[in-house]
Amino acid sequence: MKSQDNRSDLTPFFEPASVAVFGSLKEGLGLGYGVIKSMRHFGYSGRIYPIYPSGGEVMGMKAFSRISEVTEPIEAAIVITPPPTVPGIVEQCARKGVKAVIVVSENFAEAGGDGVKYQQQLVDIVRRTGIRIIGPNTIGVFNPANGFITNPYLIIHEKIRKEGIAYCSQTGYVGLAVKPMEELAYPVSKMCDIGNKCDVDESDVLNYLADDPETKVVAMHIENVKDGRRFMDAARKVVARKPLLILKAGKSEAGAEAMTSHTASLAGNEQVYDAVIKQVGALRLSSWEEYWEVPRVFACQPVPRGNRIAIITGAGGLGVVVVDVAVESGLTMANFSDVTVKRLKKLSPRLGGNPVDLGPVLSVAEDPFLVQREIIEAVLEDENVDCAAVSVYVGFDALIPHIIQMFDGLKRHKSKPMTIWIYGMKLHVLDEMLRQLEMRSLPTYLDFELAVKALGFAARYSRVKSNGE
Amino acid sequence: MKSQDNRSDLTPFFEPASVAVFGSLKEGLGLGYGVIKSMRHFGYSGRIYPIYPSGGEVMGMKAFSRISEVTEPIEAAIVITPPPTVPGIVEQCARKGVKAVIVVSENFAEAGGDGVKYQQQLVDIVRRTGIRIIGPNTIGVFNPANGFITNPYLIIHEKIRKEGIAYCSQTGYVGLAVKPMEELAYPVSKMCDIGNKCDVDESDVLNYLADDPETKVVAMHIENVKDGRRFMDAARKVVARKPLLILKAGKSEAGAEAMTSHTASLAGNEQVYDAVIKQVGALRLSSWEEYWEVPRVFACQPVPRGNRIAIITGAGGLGVVVVDVAVESGLTMANFSDVTVKRLKKLSPRLGGNPVDLGPVLSVAEDPFLVQREIIEAVLEDENVDCAAVSVYVGFDALIPHIIQMFDGLKRHKSKPMTIWIYGMKLHVLDEMLRQLEMRSLPTYLDFELAVKALGFAARYSRVKSNGE
Repeated sequence: MKSQDNRSDLTPFFEPASVAVFGSLKEGLGLGYGVIKSMRHFGYSGRIYPIYPSGGEVMGMKAFSRISEVTEPIEAAIVITPPPTVPGIVEQCARKGVKAVIVVSENFAEAGGDGVKYQQQLVDIVRRTGIRIIGPNTIGVFNPANGFITNPYLIIHEKIRKEGIAYCSQTGYVGLAVKPMEELAYPVSKMCDIGNKCDVDESDVLNYLADDPETKVVAMHIENVKDGRRFMDAARKVVARKPLLILKAGKSEAGAEAMTSHTASLAGNEQVYDAVIKQVGALRLSSWEEYWEVPRVFACQPVPRGNRIAIITGAGGLGVVVVDVAVESGLTMANFSDVTVKRLKKLSPRLGGNPVDLGPVLSVAEDPFLVQREIIEAVLEDENVDCAAVSVYVGFDALIPHIIQMFDGLKRHKSKPMTIWIYGMKLHVLDEMLRQLEMRSLPTYLDFELAVKALGFAARYSRVKSNGE
Repeated sequence: MKSQDNRSDLTPFFEPASVAVFGSLKEGLGLGYGVIKSMRHFGYSGRIYPIYPSGGEVMGMKAFSRISEVTEPIEAAIVITPPPTVPGIVEQCARKGVKAVIVVSENFAEAGGDGVKYQQQLVDIVRRTGIRIIGPNTIGVFNPANGFITNPYLIIHEKIRKEGIAYCSQTGYVGLAVKPMEELAYPVSKMCDIGNKCDVDESDVLNYLADDPETKVVAMHIENVKDGRRFMDAARKVVARKPLLILKAGKSEAGAEAMTSHTASLAGNEQVYDAVIKQVGALRLSSWEEYWEVPRVFACQPVPRGNRIAIITGAGGLGVVVVDVAVESGLTMANFSDVTVKRLKKLSPRLGGNPVDLGPVLSVAEDPFLVQREIIEAVLEDENVDCAAVSVYVGFDALIPHIIQMFDGLKRHKSKPMTIWIYGMKLHVLDEMLRQLEMRSLPTYLDFELAVKALGFAARYSRVKSNGE
């Protein structure tokens, strides 16, 4: 059942020049209609061939009653039809020369009964014909670069930021519909739900993403691994080029049990997974929150040289709690050099320690943004500092341009990542600030602890890299 | 230096009938002006007496050049003047019969130098006169019930939801300015920053909040405890009546070090704190995120009878990760009774397990909200279920009234708390949904893991209560 390595290229799944869509074309309600609408919405640039037994027309396009009627070559297919019809459709696709099929339909192995049989038929077709399948029971893929999307449900994002993070998962929860991806400027290179994994599995996806130049970091949710050795090889390939963050579900016995029931997959031994993740140099995430938020720090920031953090806060008491988080995340508090301490003390005799408490300084500063910039600069230039987490109060709309100006004017050491935590009273102000900072490739968080944790992951990746070199 | 127990009533700090304000009255910029504006903004109903050496007028009110000129009695005072002037002002307040002084000014013991001396003078006045002081170096208190607020900085909330949670802390970060308190409908009964604790300390505040009928749960951030025995007595008094959640900072050595430098307080032994928190039946929080979000579950929900959770999700893969979180939070997955399994299987043969995966059911339901309501009802009525975490997709504005109707129509067992996780693409839709559900006393989260963790805390409090009874 393992795919051969010479078939491991998943390019047709993410960058097809043409795609056939199998599914109801009923306006508004049909899932075939939905997926075509999604592709149009995101500006998919390839050719689309709607296929439906009764033919007809959809959104100004001719619908074919079968794929064999299409004379041009077709690279990929999306199938959203009842399970009993799927093996036949995939068979036709194989005959037509389609390379990649995404089976979105559910009620296969995960539902038991006849679903198991239909899934096995798909496996047989893959073996016999060499066609590749993602799914079934998946929302499939999304590639913001070319607008290719296989999700049949209405996605109301206008623009997704095309940058850096590949999110891949074994659940539809990974989709575009579950996060304010646009408004919070998530930097996305690829998204992929591998569903029931009747063919394409986590290792295939890792191999593809290792080579994908648009992907700077991979966040992967897995429940189980089909082939341990292949997974380790693929994971190592990724880690050599970019960070690999893994959320492994089913840690607890109850979790492992729950897993079995929804994808018909068996959980492996938890300790084995933990050891494997460490051994290949991947970093283990511990929550969905981390899965969504931690990769931001890798999408467009340098890898730090070490684990010495500077924390810049607006309230002393806040800093202490965050220091605890830093230590738990494997960071150590940087000891500022004499030069830096002098520079800081010149700005205020109360400065010089780490965390840097801006409170007393800003309350008396003539231009608080200038002072804040000087402090951040002094800290980032310190040879004893590898990374910094900075807190910024954003109470009003009017502060946004000042804060942008401050960060734009900041001289930064190129090898030092920085995360920003913003806080304030108004949601729209925070959201707008976050968006604007993210668009400048500054990883910004609405939670200080997360901003610090993310740097902890960055430092851990740095250690992995230097041990491997 | 310990206050006697007969002076432990902090009522004048939170519910003063009249207050004197010492600080610059310069329009727009003066901190005295700011605090009066804050009180006006929140509709403080008591009498305000601005005090400033040059007298004059502010916002239509006469300013007195000294407090002794006021003929009416004054219950409380807010002082925001340079440290050298503060002891004299507090002395005058004591002579005038003021009971409670909030010293907002900074640069006392935490700044070293002369600040230490001025703080000691405040301690001496307290001892000698019996006047009580909160601070210095604090933003003081906020009581949404009467609009009493001591924060001199512009707070742009219009209305804070008057309910349930007392937030108290040793840092100004606890203030209204750091969270979208209004837009996310935080249910607040009292807020308090105890600052440098020259007099009023964490035990005083606990004693007050134990008696406060408006407070249903206490969230307290502490760095150190001044008097262990008194703290334990006060904490026990709280726990007997309502949950006490404690965020103890300075767990790590680096954290403890950072602490010393910002409040001039000494950290105690970490293990001792941990043991004390357990012994008194308080629950230990592990992050600011938990500090702000977990109390929601206690503000207006019943305490569960046990720790058996039902998890209702929209995607199977999501459920598994959350099961792990449940187990880590001390919950166990409920085994549904035969009756419940039958009820669920009638709705769909795929149902019956826990977590309940709504995905396959909702995708084919005629009225998804009706089915969802029936499922939640069946689960909550199960004798083997103590609490439930429910996930709800809120993609569009148009869904909001349907979801509200669903929860309004829900028959619930009175002793079973429920938390809700909402997810979707649009921030304003999520925020509006959260607000509307919170206003119905349904604890709602933008993070599923947090919604589950909160129930874990509820179950732990339940265990504490039943052990104590």
